[in-house]
Amino acid sequence: MNTPLRVAVVGAGRMGADHIDRIHRRINGAEVAAVVDIDRHRAEAAIAHIPGAEAHTDFGQALDRGGIDLVLIATPGFLHEDVLLAALEHRLPTLCEKPLTPDAASAWRVVQAELAAGRQLIQVGFMRRFDAGYRALRRIIEEKSYGELLTLHHQHRNPTTPAGFTNEMIIHDTVVHEFDAVRFFTGEEITSVQVRAGRSTRNAPAGQRDPQLVLMETESGILAQVEAYVNAQFGYQVATQASFETGIVSIGGDTEPYIRSAGTWGGGVTPGFGERFGDAYDLELQDWVDAAARGEIGGPSAWDGYATAACCEAGVKAQASGRIEPVQLEARPGLYSPSVEQAPALNVTV
Amino acid sequence: MNTPLRVAVVGAGRMGADHIDRIHRRINGAEVAAVVDIDRHRAEAAIAHIPGAEAHTDFGQALDRGGIDLVLIATPGFLHEDVLLAALEHRLPTLCEKPLTPDAASAWRVVQAELAAGRQLIQVGFMRRFDAGYRALRRIIEEKSYGELLTLHHQHRNPTTPAGFTNEMIIHDTVVHEFDAVRFFTGEEITSVQVRAGRSTRNAPAGQRDPQLVLMETESGILAQVEAYVNAQFGYQVATQASFETGIVSIGGDTEPYIRSAGTWGGGVTPGFGERFGDAYDLELQDWVDAAARGEIGGPSAWDGYATAACCEAGVKAQASGRIEPVQLEARPGLYSPSVEQAPALNVTV
Amino acid sequence: MNTPLRVAVVGAGRMGADHIDRIHRRINGAEVAAVVDIDRHRAEAAIAHIPGAEAHTDFGQALDRGGIDLVLIATPGFLHEDVLLAALEHRLPTLCEKPLTPDAASAWRVVQAELAAGRQLIQVGFMRRFDAGYRALRRIIEEKSYGELLTLHHQHRNPTTPAGFTNEMIIHDTVVHEFDAVRFFTGEEITSVQVRAGRSTRNAPAGQRDPQLVLMETESGILAQVEAYVNAQFGYQVATQASFETGIVSIGGDTEPYIRSAGTWGGGVTPGFGERFGDAYDLELQDWVDAAARGEIGGPSAWDGYATAACCEAGVKAQASGRIEPVQLEARPGLYSPSVEQAPALNVTV
Amino acid sequence: MNTPLRVAVVGAGRMGADHIDRIHRRINGAEVAAVVDIDRHRAEAAIAHIPGAEAHTDFGQALDRGGIDLVLIATPGFLHEDVLLAALEHRLPTLCEKPLTPDAASAWRVVQAELAAGRQLIQVGFMRRFDAGYRALRRIIEEKSYGELLTLHHQHRNPTTPAGFTNEMIIHDTVVHEFDAVRFFTGEEITSVQVRAGRSTRNAPAGQRDPQLVLMETESGILAQVEAYVNAQFGYQVATQASFETGIVSIGGDTEPYIRSAGTWGGGVTPGFGERFGDAYDLELQDWVDAAARGEIGGPSAWDGYATAACCEAGVKAQASGRIEPVQLEARPGLYSPSVEQAPALNVTV
Repeated sequence: MNTPLRVAVVGAGRMGADHIDRIHRRINGAEVAAVVDIDRHRAEAAIAHIPGAEAHTDFGQALDRGGIDLVLIATPGFLHEDVLLAALEHRLPTLCEKPLTPDAASAWRVVQAELAAGRQLIQVGFMRRFDAGYRALRRIIEEKSYGELLTLHHQHRNPTTPAGFTNEMIIHDTVVHEFDAVRFFTGEEITSVQVRAGRSTRNAPAGQRDPQLVLMETESGILAQVEAYVNAQFGYQVATQASFETGIVSIGGDTEPYIRSAGTWGGGVTPGFGERFGDAYDLELQDWVDAAARGEIGGPSAWDGYATAACCEAGVKAQASGRIEPVQLEARPGLYSPSVEQAPALNVTV
Repeated sequence: MNTPLRVAVVGAGRMGADHIDRIHRRINGAEVAAVVDIDRHRAEAAIAHIPGAEAHTDFGQALDRGGIDLVLIATPGFLHEDVLLAALEHRLPTLCEKPLTPDAASAWRVVQAELAAGRQLIQVGFMRRFDAGYRALRRIIEEKSYGELLTLHHQHRNPTTPAGFTNEMIIHDTVVHEFDAVRFFTGEEITSVQVRAGRSTRNAPAGQRDPQLVLMETESGILAQVEAYVNAQFGYQVATQASFETGIVSIGGDTEPYIRSAGTWGGGVTPGFGERFGDAYDLELQDWVDAAARGEIGGPSAWDGYATAACCEAGVKAQASGRIEPVQLEARPGLYSPSVEQAPALNVTV
Repeated sequence: MNTPLRVAVVGAGRMGADHIDRIHRRINGAEVAAVVDIDRHRAEAAIAHIPGAEAHTDFGQALDRGGIDLVLIATPGFLHEDVLLAALEHRLPTLCEKPLTPDAASAWRVVQAELAAGRQLIQVGFMRRFDAGYRALRRIIEEKSYGELLTLHHQHRNPTTPAGFTNEMIIHDTVVHEFDAVRFFTGEEITSVQVRAGRSTRNAPAGQRDPQLVLMETESGILAQVEAYVNAQFGYQVATQASFETGIVSIGGDTEPYIRSAGTWGGGVTPGFGERFGDAYDLELQDWVDAAARGEIGGPSAWDGYATAACCEAGVKAQASGRIEPVQLEARPGLYSPSVEQAPALNVTV
Repeated sequence: MNTPLRVAVVGAGRMGADHIDRIHRRINGAEVAAVVDIDRHRAEAAIAHIPGAEAHTDFGQALDRGGIDLVLIATPGFLHEDVLLAALEHRLPTLCEKPLTPDAASAWRVVQAELAAGRQLIQVGFMRRFDAGYRALRRIIEEKSYGELLTLHHQHRNPTTPAGFTNEMIIHDTVVHEFDAVRFFTGEEITSVQVRAGRSTRNAPAGQRDPQLVLMETESGILAQVEAYVNAQFGYQVATQASFETGIVSIGGDTEPYIRSAGTWGGGVTPGFGERFGDAYDLELQDWVDAAARGEIGGPSAWDGYATAACCEAGVKAQASGRIEPVQLEARPGLYSPSVEQAPALNVTV
């Protein structure tokens, strides 16, 4: 057995603590070596059960101590850029929770820095690409099992939103997943975004329009829509229906056990993304560690982080204008060839 | 348009009143001419909204008045024999709610009387044969779409049983439907019955074993089982899963609308047989009227009534003995050739 | 039993012949008295099996012969207006297959004539309103079982289109059903229509864009969309998913039998609207006849025919403009109060 | 991070090679240190990609080399006893693929040896206990969410059987899983077994009866049945339906993606147990390694291996006798208290 790769986790909040636990308990070939959080107590608490791991309040300190092989960033998005640039400087393969950075301009700076580094080092945490259903649908699209893909219809439903969740955040935090999903499924960039909002639920916080229908078009003219409904109360649901030339394919349906009781048939809805995508997070991290052990990086790239940031900017603009807004994108650097974009085949049985 | 056929309905209880309403409002080519019930008030109430219909307290009186083309019997089973024999004597096509009569001996007397009449006049109310799912499964079996049928697994679940519902009644009133269903699906007689009862639900009345597993074998060795569970609380469910040489076919599944709410996905279970088999009753009566208009009789025959009565007797014996009990059956008279047994094709789209 | 109502069927093509057969064999309280078709042979063939029915080549002749109680119009839409006006003149309750007339201006003339007649006599053949699933969803909306309705997402998929099926016909013949459905579900008028078409299937005829996404908004701001996909190959599918404040409700799902075979689980898709909506046609006609026997008219009104014609005009304009097009509607005459619009409760168990 | 535990895998056939790969690539906290197979080439091939692992042809040699922390046995069942006894002697926590041994007498010898060792060291590879659906159903039973469990109905369907698969093997290799499942679900021993076989599929090899219905009863009278159908052609299916006092719960249903194509709706059936239970194998091994790291053993015990062997003997006897055969069981030693039997809670989200 090879020596496990040593990971520095930046950010010890909910998501960071979750990843620390995942690496410690379920991921093969990696170990948590350092945790960085400005709150020293939180950093220490996150690694209390992991012998040998160190707590830091500064990423630079952690790097200076040496012995770090991989970086996992789980801080709020506005703190990503500095850590990413430092990690790039040290040539450390980095898994960065989404968003790459909060806007297209800063994301483009990260892309430029990676280009300067000369090779891909950054993977963005669009974990849905590692969901068994997503991978099955992508394969069906690639293999043209039912002819060409024509339309995508996504449902993205959350039970509630935290206080202060704005219309803009519906684009940046919710629909950003579908922006990446549409790009993942089609292998194409999104060229325009339109947003329509009609009657809102009384369960939406003041000022928030909910649900919102987001319509996208891709380079070849595939129409994709999202029903983004973030105060849907009943539970968490992420599902997609794809129309092809000779068939319709759906993913994200119901889960077992199947119950008949009290005059009803059916089962339980997953309450949140953790239950829905827990396996995808495991696969994402294992895939990242395995690739790093081979000297590679896979999964969604810095380019994907940049392109979705540009989609978000068009989406927010479309919320205000009511019009079909074009997505402004720089030319894609050769480093991010389509063949790089796809994650290596996983051991996923679908 | 031909003159509508004039029906005498015998029995104005719940089922009788239901049939009266059905004939009056939904069946083409027939009208309710007379209602017979020992309770005159009940008879009169059942036809209050039907101009021209007459109430009687005696079936003989109704016959004497003349002008009756068809008889529909909806009294309790122990009263069937006399009415059936009188109707046979008058050569009146008769639809008799199940059971034909309460036991095999009396059923055999009815068969003998029909043989003496020289042609089939009696149809027994096994309405499931008119259910779209039942007909679809039978067609799949006949067409050998998935090779030979090997096993049948039935679920027969009622929400509760009325007071005084005994173990014997689980056979006579509940499983009797599956006895006929197995015969309908396979086109074969049942040769033996075994009954097993284990842990009972606390919702069963004192003395009743519930659920009970009933195992049957047909002439060619097809094994069929029923989970008869009559205090299942959650609702009414009648379903069948059939195993074939190259496939498995199920009927009786869930109904729409499909709902996601309050942490669950699913829908509503039908509360009783009326909701589950309402369409089948309509088709059964329309089919019976249409056949009579052509001078024919179709659907389940007096032989079917007799054969299921014999199965019930074996079933009750098996409850007591714990053994595999043979079904005792007379030789099938030529009048009831298999080709007669099958109902004419309905306008059922499956 | 009352004397059956005598129906004149105008148009003996596929739909007309189907209705003739339906009235003759399944509808209680009505009989086919006359059939009108410019092709005398076709008219005669349609009633060959119906004693007493007469064939005509002219609707006026049929009226002159007298003895007609009801009119059913099943000719192509451009021939409707004259027959409707004549039927109105004779005060005959009329069921008119959709569309009422081909455009809003002529539909408005029919509305005016009905207003002049002083009472509702016309029912338009939007048979989906009699589908069990449609009625269940409407009831859920009305009862606010899951709070307010927020969005509707319809799928309307046909296997193929006949030769010469244009983009305009996708609005007039396909989406017209959803225009009425949205109005039926919400009880509101549609205020605007937008149409988006992206990549088309290679199975579409030259010049046709398929699929097309049609977005509507209602008076209160409910957003409704249709994926109109008319060369979907796999079969016929009409389904709706409705998002409410506390739940999601879907209708139009799968049908039995449920089969596992050859490495797959699932069942069969209905091949066309006949199989999908056959029961709805039966209920529609029975309801129309029953209402007429009571001296009433129910179901979708001439106003519904007019309003959907106006939606179609906006839809065709939106196909060309790419913009959100307003629906232009006259003020609703008091004759068509919302309370009239709803069909009387059917004996539909859901 | 702690030093990974060093595993000796005995048997490098299909299942052994699969486990080697699993430990090497997906299991955290363990590494493959040695592989034992009488075929040296096979042993060497299985570890060619694992630096530091050693190939042996004899388990004793592997033990003599030292440095082994855990043993995983994946040889044919008749070879298990010697390896188990040697592993017990060395106090090595051992995961033994099912069956523990081929018959109750030898299984009892293993139990005796473990009792002599004074603590539990053996876990038997009934991996279904680690399936998310199985665990969910067990939790529902334990929590009495729908009252008491009354009946279990299992379907165990394989596409085909290898040449030479006898009736006895249907019990020993197929139904053995359900014997354990029924014990796992109910927490009770099985007290009797009955087997019924009727019409067989033409796809069964000569001499094999297929399908077979196996009926069990537990200590408290719960009736459980299995439709064991091992040449079902269509795919691999393992499913259970449980009837409770107030509800019915099913597991093992269909998987995504959900497809409409070519006149059908549905999806794909898993082709074999690898696809169906792959996740369960991962969880089983990770759980075993984690428990061993804590100095514990969990999962199905040697007692479970012994008890299912006794069920198999009763099952084979019942195939021949056609009667309800009692299961003969020694008194349960205190070492195997029910509280030990249950696996520690997994990180399974259901």
